[in-house]
Amino acid sequence: MDIVEIAQIAKAASIQLAAVKTDVKNNALAEIAKALKQNSGKIVSANEKDLAEAQKNNLSAPLLKRLKFDENKITDVIAGIESLIKLDDPVGKTLLATELDRGLELYKVSCPIGVIGIIFESRPDALVQISTLCLKSGNAVLLKGGSEATNTNRILAEVISEATCGELVESSDPASSKDYAEAKKAGLPKGWLQLLETRQDVAEMLALDEYIDLIIPRGSNEFVHYIMDNTNIPVLGHAEGICHVYIDSYATLDMAVKIAVDSKCQYVAACNAAETLLVHSKIAKEFLPKVKSALQEKGADSTSSPQADSTSSPQADSTSSPQADSTGSPQVEIRGCEKTKAIIDVKPATEEDWSTEYLDLIISIKVVETLDEAIEHINRYGSHHTDAIVSDDRDAVRKFMALVDSANVFWNCSTRFSDGYRFGLGAEVGISTNKIHARGPVGLEGLLIYKWQLLGIGQIVADYSGPRAKKFTHRRIDRRKP
Amino acid sequence: MDIVEIAQIAKAASIQLAAVKTDVKNNALAEIAKALKQNSGKIVSANEKDLAEAQKNNLSAPLLKRLKFDENKITDVIAGIESLIKLDDPVGKTLLATELDRGLELYKVSCPIGVIGIIFESRPDALVQISTLCLKSGNAVLLKGGSEATNTNRILAEVISEATCGELVESSDPASSKDYAEAKKAGLPKGWLQLLETRQDVAEMLALDEYIDLIIPRGSNEFVHYIMDNTNIPVLGHAEGICHVYIDSYATLDMAVKIAVDSKCQYVAACNAAETLLVHSKIAKEFLPKVKSALQEKGADSTSSPQADSTSSPQADSTSSPQADSTGSPQVEIRGCEKTKAIIDVKPATEEDWSTEYLDLIISIKVVETLDEAIEHINRYGSHHTDAIVSDDRDAVRKFMALVDSANVFWNCSTRFSDGYRFGLGAEVGISTNKIHARGPVGLEGLLIYKWQLLGIGQIVADYSGPRAKKFTHRRIDRRKP
Repeated sequence: MDIVEIAQIAKAASIQLAAVKTDVKNNALAEIAKALKQNSGKIVSANEKDLAEAQKNNLSAPLLKRLKFDENKITDVIAGIESLIKLDDPVGKTLLATELDRGLELYKVSCPIGVIGIIFESRPDALVQISTLCLKSGNAVLLKGGSEATNTNRILAEVISEATCGELVESSDPASSKDYAEAKKAGLPKGWLQLLETRQDVAEMLALDEYIDLIIPRGSNEFVHYIMDNTNIPVLGHAEGICHVYIDSYATLDMAVKIAVDSKCQYVAACNAAETLLVHSKIAKEFLPKVKSALQEKGADSTSSPQADSTSSPQADSTSSPQADSTGSPQVEIRGCEKTKAIIDVKPATEEDWSTEYLDLIISIKVVETLDEAIEHINRYGSHHTDAIVSDDRDAVRKFMALVDSANVFWNCSTRFSDGYRFGLGAEVGISTNKIHARGPVGLEGLLIYKWQLLGIGQIVADYSGPRAKKFTHRRIDRRKP
Repeated sequence: MDIVEIAQIAKAASIQLAAVKTDVKNNALAEIAKALKQNSGKIVSANEKDLAEAQKNNLSAPLLKRLKFDENKITDVIAGIESLIKLDDPVGKTLLATELDRGLELYKVSCPIGVIGIIFESRPDALVQISTLCLKSGNAVLLKGGSEATNTNRILAEVISEATCGELVESSDPASSKDYAEAKKAGLPKGWLQLLETRQDVAEMLALDEYIDLIIPRGSNEFVHYIMDNTNIPVLGHAEGICHVYIDSYATLDMAVKIAVDSKCQYVAACNAAETLLVHSKIAKEFLPKVKSALQEKGADSTSSPQADSTSSPQADSTSSPQADSTGSPQVEIRGCEKTKAIIDVKPATEEDWSTEYLDLIISIKVVETLDEAIEHINRYGSHHTDAIVSDDRDAVRKFMALVDSANVFWNCSTRFSDGYRFGLGAEVGISTNKIHARGPVGLEGLLIYKWQLLGIGQIVADYSGPRAKKFTHRRIDRRKP
């Protein structure tokens, strides 16, 4: 099947999926969990094939770790599915209800977006998480995983499709909405989940804005930029994560040190790890030596914590950095501006450092003269992802929060908190630096849009125009489902 | 000034504008209203220059009518500004508040998108409406109007800029956030509104995704497609409006005739006017002769009602069709499929007709055998804008509403209701067929996004991971502003 056919089938499936009832979707999720358990032997041995191949190709240890999909990982994704079943159905919610006139009622009702194209790397658990999130929100999904996980992804997609698409649907024409009735009985419309396998497939997918409504890319910065630059389909996500911690003149220095170290070191390969410290000149002399020794002390054990992110794993996907887990340098390398270097002995920072996402045990430090200078630096060099201020001055905090143009602006806490799991979103689709639709950590609601349903009894616009026009009442009414 | 500088200044202004308080914005709106009144003489004479030039260039009568900006129009836009002042400030609303742990509180707070690029045609009142909507929502705006309105647009932009940007700001460096304090005192940051004047400016603007966050194009289909195909900046809007009315087998025929006629004829140049009737074969024999004579009767006077749209004028912008107001054909031309032609004597419809937006007194009719066929036709040939079903069968209605993949799905009423004013949205930014961010008629909320503000007392992520991890509380809290 070529990619256009695949996308057409996904589009047709998405139309039907939008109307599938909550219990059918939850039942399908339960079927997936069951099938994963039943097929765990097959899945693990497919993964072992991938692992053996990867070892032959000298994949780095951290990448091998991500690729591994054993019984424990299967147990984890099943637990994820079980909590997803418990979440409210986000589809069919009335967001606004207005009486336009007697017997003419308008409902703004949440609905799925349609067909989502998702491109992810390495970790096969991402396939299960993403496809079940799409199912719960009623979206069809086209998935492209990393080539090193080919065998694992293939068996997972097979198991999920078989568990959700009933035979009745399988035997009829999936591209026609005639299956509507059968789909409700037997399961989900065939083709709601499909796997793409080659880079060429991805390139072709980017042109199919007629059938694909949203692309969520997760991977290296270059890869995400490539996607954004080569498609008319809306893209949800982020490329770089150049995050800052600004230590204000009114900061409690011990807290500032703790937050700086956590933001940089707690998991250096994450997109929400800090890359640059901005330090107010008034406290630089006192703060910089403290933070230097803390960063150097911490550096040594900071490479052991990536498992801390397993709870919020989709995000970890975008943060692969072999060096991060390697044991090359046990200390944090500090690169400072001239003013920093006048206080502590560190390497010099160049202009390039301010816009570099290290994803490693490296941090750049700049001394600023004012809060405004800090804000300007962040808005200019940052990636509008996550930026924190440490300060006890409420006015400074308020200004920072208002003028820093980032998805996440934090006060007196670590940048590492910006994450769907930590935010309590229930599930994370990704982290977005978009200025429309969804920003920051995105939960299920990022996979939804709405439609307007207007229910009348024969009204026409001619009666509401001209000199004897009827008047609209425009009265808010109870948000019941139409 | 070149377009990059203009965009940079707008970006800097947008950062400050995001933090401007409600009363400052409302005061600025009142200043605009006052200045428009005071400068009405200058505005009208600039408009007279444009009108004279347009007459020399043989602009059609309807376009001249759109171009005209006299005392009455000024009174209208001032009334619009006064009702905008009364609307709640949409910025700074807490959309969600969650305690992550004791002393660690997360707020999802509405904020402006940033810099909006708006391209509109002909009507100078659109400039005032759009820029005041952007002001209320805290967005900077780059405007490009139709070249035939150059003089009017220029004076309007001047009057609005002067009324809103205080002298203090004017004399300082607008590209720096150092003006923050002055901006609050004196007015709005200089450069929050700027006018582009050439097509070349627009072409260059499309490349500036670093500074411009959203483009709203209003104009001909070709023009909107050109914008969509030539920028990485998100675009909010619609190109075609190919709307359908489906007459189900269980329709009340008199109601169906009334709705079909209104949807087609009430204002043929509007994007929400119907282009195609789908008629269930069971009632075709009875319905088609009725609708034919009603359409032919109505056609004669349907060209006189475009003023009915003056209340919801931004939308009317996208619907310029000289023929619509001309008096070439007083009757509705009907083009039917084979089955239609077997019942009523009409011209034949070709495949092309099903995907044509006539914007004129022409309608195509297709007889369908099933509800599914109607739904498939709409999803295939429609533009996902507005589609209506006329039926007394609740099951058919429910299925139609669920499976028709359009921004607006209507039951027993005219497609012409899909409009921000009629929906009671207070103000209309445009009508969107996007599947993300905002769909259908878009009010002020389409110009807003949100940021996440996390307020802590020194928390770090290391304490929430590992074997002795602290637990998150994830408790919904009162939605008070942080």
